[in-house]
Amino acid sequence: MLTNFKFELITQDERARLGALYTGFGRIDTPAFMPVGTAASVKGMMPEAVVQTGAQIILSNTYHLMLRPGPDRVERLGGVRKMMNWKGPLLTDSGGFQVMSLGPLRTLDEHGVTFKSHLDGSYHLLTPEISTEIQRKLDATITMAFDECTPYPATKSQAAESMELSMRWAERSRKAFIQKQGYGQFGIVQGSVYPELRLESIQKLHEIGFEGYAIGGLAVGEGQELMFETLTATTPHMVSSKPRYLMGVGKPSDIVGAVMRGVDMFDCVLPTRSGRTGQAFTRFGTVNIRNARHADDIRPLDEACSCTGCKNYSRGYLHHLFKADEIQGLTLLTWHNLTYYQELMNSIRESIREGQLKKFVSSFYQLQAEGDIPQL
Amino acid sequence: MLTNFKFELITQDERARLGALYTGFGRIDTPAFMPVGTAASVKGMMPEAVVQTGAQIILSNTYHLMLRPGPDRVERLGGVRKMMNWKGPLLTDSGGFQVMSLGPLRTLDEHGVTFKSHLDGSYHLLTPEISTEIQRKLDATITMAFDECTPYPATKSQAAESMELSMRWAERSRKAFIQKQGYGQFGIVQGSVYPELRLESIQKLHEIGFEGYAIGGLAVGEGQELMFETLTATTPHMVSSKPRYLMGVGKPSDIVGAVMRGVDMFDCVLPTRSGRTGQAFTRFGTVNIRNARHADDIRPLDEACSCTGCKNYSRGYLHHLFKADEIQGLTLLTWHNLTYYQELMNSIRESIREGQLKKFVSSFYQLQAEGDIPQL
Repeated sequence: MLTNFKFELITQDERARLGALYTGFGRIDTPAFMPVGTAASVKGMMPEAVVQTGAQIILSNTYHLMLRPGPDRVERLGGVRKMMNWKGPLLTDSGGFQVMSLGPLRTLDEHGVTFKSHLDGSYHLLTPEISTEIQRKLDATITMAFDECTPYPATKSQAAESMELSMRWAERSRKAFIQKQGYGQFGIVQGSVYPELRLESIQKLHEIGFEGYAIGGLAVGEGQELMFETLTATTPHMVSSKPRYLMGVGKPSDIVGAVMRGVDMFDCVLPTRSGRTGQAFTRFGTVNIRNARHADDIRPLDEACSCTGCKNYSRGYLHHLFKADEIQGLTLLTWHNLTYYQELMNSIRESIREGQLKKFVSSFYQLQAEGDIPQL
Repeated sequence: MLTNFKFELITQDERARLGALYTGFGRIDTPAFMPVGTAASVKGMMPEAVVQTGAQIILSNTYHLMLRPGPDRVERLGGVRKMMNWKGPLLTDSGGFQVMSLGPLRTLDEHGVTFKSHLDGSYHLLTPEISTEIQRKLDATITMAFDECTPYPATKSQAAESMELSMRWAERSRKAFIQKQGYGQFGIVQGSVYPELRLESIQKLHEIGFEGYAIGGLAVGEGQELMFETLTATTPHMVSSKPRYLMGVGKPSDIVGAVMRGVDMFDCVLPTRSGRTGQAFTRFGTVNIRNARHADDIRPLDEACSCTGCKNYSRGYLHHLFKADEIQGLTLLTWHNLTYYQELMNSIRESIREGQLKKFVSSFYQLQAEGDIPQL
């Protein structure tokens, strides 16, 4: 028997929330960061390694999986979780964000979006109903409503029109969603940077009723300050008994600021993508391991980090792996970055529990400003 | 206190030998297969995964490591084993084979070989003394003598001249080798496909005295039949109290045939390189996982295999990973292939122990001939 899908708000530190999201496939401690496994694989990582970083849920992309290997094939192989041997919960996006980014390769109307595959040029259709059905075939623990990610910048009337379409699509997405114990569906708040539109969107979504609410259309070029302002004006109107997920965010400082504004869940390709290019996140800011100054450095990337890269390997060796294009280099740096993100979330959760988030955040910014450890 | 470097011959089944090679960093059950970690990383594999395949020793390439990151840098980082977090023994080749393959980019005389780096065009010198010193800096558990890998085909007089040079170099290599407890050095038998030259080479190497003897200059284009003939004529003259290592070999059937002719150790890039291109070794022959017939197959690559790829993933998923260029695909197939090789060596050892090698070999060839399991 699967656990019910439910959110527990444990405590608050000002607007920051400590919680737990229960799903049929495991508990997620919030604030939580979800690593991205676009095509049913967290690039360069075995699922056992993803678990070791501390991740409790991962995200896959409907757009990529519907094109390859295709939703029916994924279903035949047992769904994304079984197929990729991921035992925990899985969130899938709706495909909306990716098809919007296709630009001239897609056309949108009330019904949905027609687009051309970036793989073979074939035509495909996504509607709220189709997206929801595909996510069911992928066996998503958390299904996202199909929406239009409003481009930035947008005038207020453009943003309103787009948000209203997304709300009609949210209603159709909810109708198409087949409820099962342990599974849930999230609606997505739109409205660009206009607080009145965000409020209107929230009210509409509350009316429909979802197991959680995401904030979409941010981190699309508006900058951190405006993103924070929008969050400040948005989250107080969101029901406190359901999880709040800020989509596609972000840098460590984005996450810290968003948690302070009441957000519970995050996802971003940054730790994985940066890991593959040699960029490492540390307590002291980012480090480019390809830099020649690391070549003879016997010290770990960050002696306080618990990942296998920091426990067992020197900066000099990591540098060598990147210079020699060895696959193990990107695995180790991805592993490190995902561990950094999970340890950050863990510190955030501990700080909220102790009512010390402000103190943590101020020391976080101070360390980040110090820069990398000095050369040997 | 390190264990002495010594070889124990446990039993024989006709000419096949069951043994154990003790080193300062662990025991190697023979016949043994050594995975290749050219640039101090078994491509796509964490060292913990290499251990899980059953490998007890790995090989790294002096040529690659001397150019990048360089022997002094490796020494500062603690040697290859410490640098790459490999706890077991390490064998390094002498660089001779790789510089020979450079063709017009190298010049050879009595003193050694001058060659141009394939990385940056810089000039480098390898001599028996320099190669041995570099291997010391790499902290090789087993150092190889510097030799000329005689090109194939070679006339008898060309082969004799080349072998004699290698024997003078073997003497200089031995002189340059600093003996340490737990470490050893192997000489390399040359002489192309000419039994008298092979015998002459063996006698010279025995005179010098090494902790083990390799057979070089095979698997260079002469074909399996002539390789087996040469082995048949060569190994009976090699001292039985020392390990025998056939360099750069090979396909599973090469290994099986060479074991029957008295060889104890092997190395080859085949399982790792094939894994990266989607070619899998199985009991039923090789399988190309990129083939469309696997796309919907929920069965593992080989249900009898104990690797994580076969225990936890379907052929359909492996196929998807390769089609989507996901790194995890090549990791899983490399892991599988290395496991296949180690399980083959394990079966060979068990069969020798029970005096049943011939029976094993005949069922091995029968299964290989059957071809892959039928389509669903």
